[in-house]
Formats: sequence, C-alpha cells, structure tokens
Amino acid sequence: MNDTVTLTIEQAQELSLAVLEGNGFGKEHAGAIMRSVVAAQIDECHSHGLYRLMGCVHTARNGGLDTHAQPEIIDQAPAITRVDARKGCSLLSFEKALPMLVEKTRHCGISVLAITNSFHFSALWPEVEQISAHGLVGMAMTPTHAFVAPAGGTKPLLGTNPIAFSWPRPGKTPYTFDFATSMIARGEIELHRRAGKPIPEGWAIDKNGDATTDPTEALEGAMLTFGGHKGSALSTMIGLLAGPLIGDVLGHETYAASENAPGKPHHGEMIIAFSPETFLGADAQKHLDHAEELFEGIVNQGARLPSQRRFEARERSRKNGVTIPKALYEDLSALTAEQ
Amino acid sequence: MNDTVTLTIEQAQELSLAVLEGNGFGKEHAGAIMRSVVAAQIDECHSHGLYRLMGCVHTARNGGLDTHAQPEIIDQAPAITRVDARKGCSLLSFEKALPMLVEKTRHCGISVLAITNSFHFSALWPEVEQISAHGLVGMAMTPTHAFVAPAGGTKPLLGTNPIAFSWPRPGKTPYTFDFATSMIARGEIELHRRAGKPIPEGWAIDKNGDATTDPTEALEGAMLTFGGHKGSALSTMIGLLAGPLIGDVLGHETYAASENAPGKPHHGEMIIAFSPETFLGADAQKHLDHAEELFEGIVNQGARLPSQRRFEARERSRKNGVTIPKALYEDLSALTAEQ
Repeated sequence: MNDTVTLTIEQAQELSLAVLEGNGFGKEHAGAIMRSVVAAQIDECHSHGLYRLMGCVHTARNGGLDTHAQPEIIDQAPAITRVDARKGCSLLSFEKALPMLVEKTRHCGISVLAITNSFHFSALWPEVEQISAHGLVGMAMTPTHAFVAPAGGTKPLLGTNPIAFSWPRPGKTPYTFDFATSMIARGEIELHRRAGKPIPEGWAIDKNGDATTDPTEALEGAMLTFGGHKGSALSTMIGLLAGPLIGDVLGHETYAASENAPGKPHHGEMIIAFSPETFLGADAQKHLDHAEELFEGIVNQGARLPSQRRFEARERSRKNGVTIPKALYEDLSALTAEQ
Repeated sequence: MNDTVTLTIEQAQELSLAVLEGNGFGKEHAGAIMRSVVAAQIDECHSHGLYRLMGCVHTARNGGLDTHAQPEIIDQAPAITRVDARKGCSLLSFEKALPMLVEKTRHCGISVLAITNSFHFSALWPEVEQISAHGLVGMAMTPTHAFVAPAGGTKPLLGTNPIAFSWPRPGKTPYTFDFATSMIARGEIELHRRAGKPIPEGWAIDKNGDATTDPTEALEGAMLTFGGHKGSALSTMIGLLAGPLIGDVLGHETYAASENAPGKPHHGEMIIAFSPETFLGADAQKHLDHAEELFEGIVNQGARLPSQRRFEARERSRKNGVTIPKALYEDLSALTAEQ
C-alpha cells in the first residue's frame, strides 16, 4: 500500500485553489496563496507546502481574517511602496505591490515595500526569489509570535524574526537564504517532545530563565536566538524595521486572526530591493559576473550554497510532480468536498 | 609611577591632529580620522581609539594611501549617493557625503551611501550613530581581509564582514550594535597565542580545515563565522552588498595600501539609511515611542542593550577625559616630534 500521493503541478494547483475557494477565500487571495504553497511544495518544503492550506482554512473558519480584503497600495515616497493589507493575507499584497516595488527600485536604486495590517504565514524565500527573478537583489524580514528571549534575558519577547535574501545569478538559481533568527524552528522542539527526546543545549530556557534540555519545559519557557548576543541584536533589528518603522506591531504584540480560536499571526513585513543596474550602470554585468567568484570560492572548497537542496527538489518536482502524504491528500480533498 | 596618561578631550583631539598632519595627512583627512578615533577613545574602544593612529601613520608612510585624496561625490540615482574615495581613507568620504545621504533619505524614505575605492580601518558605529543623530535609522556593512571560512568550508574566503545598526531614541542613547560576522576578532586569537592559551572550540579551523584550539594553527588556518551556516550566509550577503553591488572588491580581494609593507585594507562600504518620518508621516513619533516598549522589555528582564558599556564610558570620558597607556602616549608624541 502506498501512503503517499503524487500530483502533477497542475493538479496541486487545482487542489489548492479548490480548497481555498471552497472555504471562503476570494479568487485573488486563493491564487496568491496557491502560488506560494505550491512553490514551497515544489521545493519540498513540506511545512510551507500544501500542508499549510489546512491552517489557512482553519484560520478563515475561525474568523478575523478577511478572505476578500482588497489591499490598498499607497505610493508613500519615491522609494517606499506601502500596502495596507486590510486584514487580508500578506501574499496578495505582495503580488499586487511587486510591480511598484520593481519600478521604484529601478528608478531610485533601492526601495522598500512595507506591508502592514496583514496575516502572515508564508516562507519569505518565494518573495525574495520573485525579486531576484527581476534581476534585482531582494531582502525580506518579518516579526512573528514572540517565542524567543533576548540574549541574557529570561522571557519570550522577540519573534522568530526571519530574514531572507536573494541575489540574481542570470542563467542559474539565485543565491538565496531564508532563516529564522531563533536557534531553531519551534516545530523542532515540538517534534522532540513528541518523540520523548531531549533537545540540545542552547536551544531554549525554561520559564525561570534557566537552560533546559527538556522540550516541554522549553515550550513553556523561551527559545534562544542563534549566535548569542549577535543573533539577538539582529533579531531586535528585524523586529524594529518590520515593526515600528513601517507602523506595525512588535513581535510580542502579534495576534491571532481570531480571539476565539488559534489562527495565523497578524503583523507587518518589510521587503527591500536593490537594483544593480541603477547602482552600476553599464558595469552591472561585470560586477554580477565578478560576484560569481565568491560563490565558486564557496563551492570549490566543498561547502554548499544555501537553498541548494530546494533547487534540487525543484528540478525533480518539475519532472516528476509533487508527492504528499496520502493522509494530507485525503484531508485536503475532504475540505473541497465539504462545500 | 603612573603608567597611564589622562588627556582632556581637546588634548586628545590636538594630539591626534598633530600626529596625522605631522605625518602627511591633509587637513581634511586628519580631521575626519581624528573625529573617529577620538569618538572611539571616548567610548573606551581602545583598539579603535588613539592606538589606531599608529597604524594610520605606518600605512601613510608605506605608501599607496592618498593622504590628500579629494573624494568625488556622485549623485548616482534618487536614492543612491556614490563616493569614489580615490584611494583616500573612507572617513572623509563618509563625512562629505553624509548631507546628501540624509537629504535623499528624507526625500525617498530609504537611501544608500556607497563608498568605493577607499582605505578602511574604522569602527562602523560612529557612522551609524551620526545617522541616528539625524533622527534616521542607520545600517552599515563592509568587507575586510578574508580570514574567515564559509560554513562547511576549509579555507579563508569571507572577510570578518561587520554589520552595524543604529536606531534613534530621542533624548536617549540610540539602540546601536556593531559586530563582526566572524566568531571573534582576529586580535583575540593573537592574544591567546601570546598568552600561550588554547582558544575555545568553534572559533577556528587549521589549514587542513580541521577544528583546532591551537591559536597558531588557527592563525594559519581560518576563522569561523558566528552562528554556523546562518552567520556564514549573513557574511556572504554583506560581502555581496558592500562589494559587487557597489562595484568594489570581495573580501578575498581586499588589499593593503602598499605592495611593500603592511597597511590598512582597501575596499568598499555600504551604508543604508531609513527615514521614520517619510515612512510614517505624522505617526512617526507614535511608532518611535512604541519601539521603546521593545527596549524596555529587554532591559526589564535583566538583559542588556548592546553598546551600553560604550555609552557608560562616554559619560565618564566627558567628565574625566580619556586615559591611554603612557607607552602609547609617548609613541604618539614621538610621532609629532619627528616632523
């Protein structure tokens, strides 16, 4: 008996749309969410793939999220595109504002897309890779629910505050990374708890602020940032830039869509884009070629570039389609049938 | 016998100018360097304080650095100020271009100052703090000599690639950090070598790429980044943004001022500034006030904000002047007398 199901990319897209549109999401939001989760599934990022549709549907059912919100795009300044997501999911805001971000970046050299008042649950790399696909350099940051203590502290205050970056490499997959500034994803601690295994030292502290290797104590306490006080400073910076600077909340203030039931968190997102051609004019290609020496220097000493596993998965999925657990396939199919 | 000398801030300034102008630096460069090293000395950052004048003089004597270079400021794009330092020290370029950076940032919301073709040897925090003193948010990055291996690698390729950030807190010292993306400063390994002490695991690898706690092997091998693959990715990003994006060299290509004798490294620097008022209009103050909750949340749980030790030293120095080793004072005085 086979406990997985393989879908063509088109089937994965259709299933995703059917789940979303069948559960209250307007056509445009359903499309934007579908493109993000299918991109993650193609790259075999299962946690951000089709699995995430379950959470989207539950969030929509619990209320609080506007599944038909029309994002308001504001031309805030020559180098700032602001989007009020109006309590909709952030992905449609990103897609709708991307053309203005690209245009402003090409004109000004650098520009920011600030998304506020949005529900956010997606990986950042699909967005920064859309920017690098335009030949620009992309960076994205967002705060999230505050599960993380600052270095030297004892209590949750910072979000897992991820940062993503993508550098265009024409003809090649971009140089992309996307990582949380917490030591580890919260889900990893949960997995250890379920398996009855201790977590490594340095991942978390208990509710008294003492080091712990007990996953249950860790979940009741606080996670730690990666890289000690340096990671903590970086996380604080991300919280400030993707929070107060764009007029949105801090990590410890993000809230769920619904007051009555759990749902995706509500907060802002900051995206920065840089235009090599605007910085360098006719010399841009020469310097982009030159940047390849750094990537070659990394690979030639046996180290890996970030995201290579994703890019290899992408190749595979484009040939073979995407494979998901049969149980997930059945759950998603049931969500389309219920309507 | 007293082996330190205490100077008033004015005396420290005069001594610095006498050393620099007496050893070939033009008046403007001497002023810019003086302001940076005195600021560091006031904050009791001894390695970037008056001690650094010794290296400046040696670099100037060895040749290669243009001590009279007139930086060329280029209005590259609405949000890009470019400066060709013309083989001069980066500090004068920063000072001369700061007004354009501030003006463009206020107008566009975000803008970049790209300094290229410069000799660089200064801490980044005095620059980002000059930006936050204007009520803007500052970020700075620079590559340096490549002493650091990428995560999973075996050989030096990345610079110690520092990043600095400063967030304005009107009426208070700014939220500022400035750290190398290497695990530790190279000087720390040197200090262990001199003291005959092993270095902690995780700081460095030997020339075969194997973990080492021997400081001599570490200096012949490569340092590691902080935070494993995340720190390595961040360091790579800094190398790209403050290198090829602004048309300057990568960390493994920085070179000394002189071919014949050691000197300060030659490379670029990227500074980004954000204007809260342009992002937020009349709401800016409200959101800056709101950011204070994050700082209070850090301090109230017993954690420290970065740079607090510097700010405490600053208070002290403003009252009591600055104190340097007598040997350094004599060396610097001798450098003024030789002329």
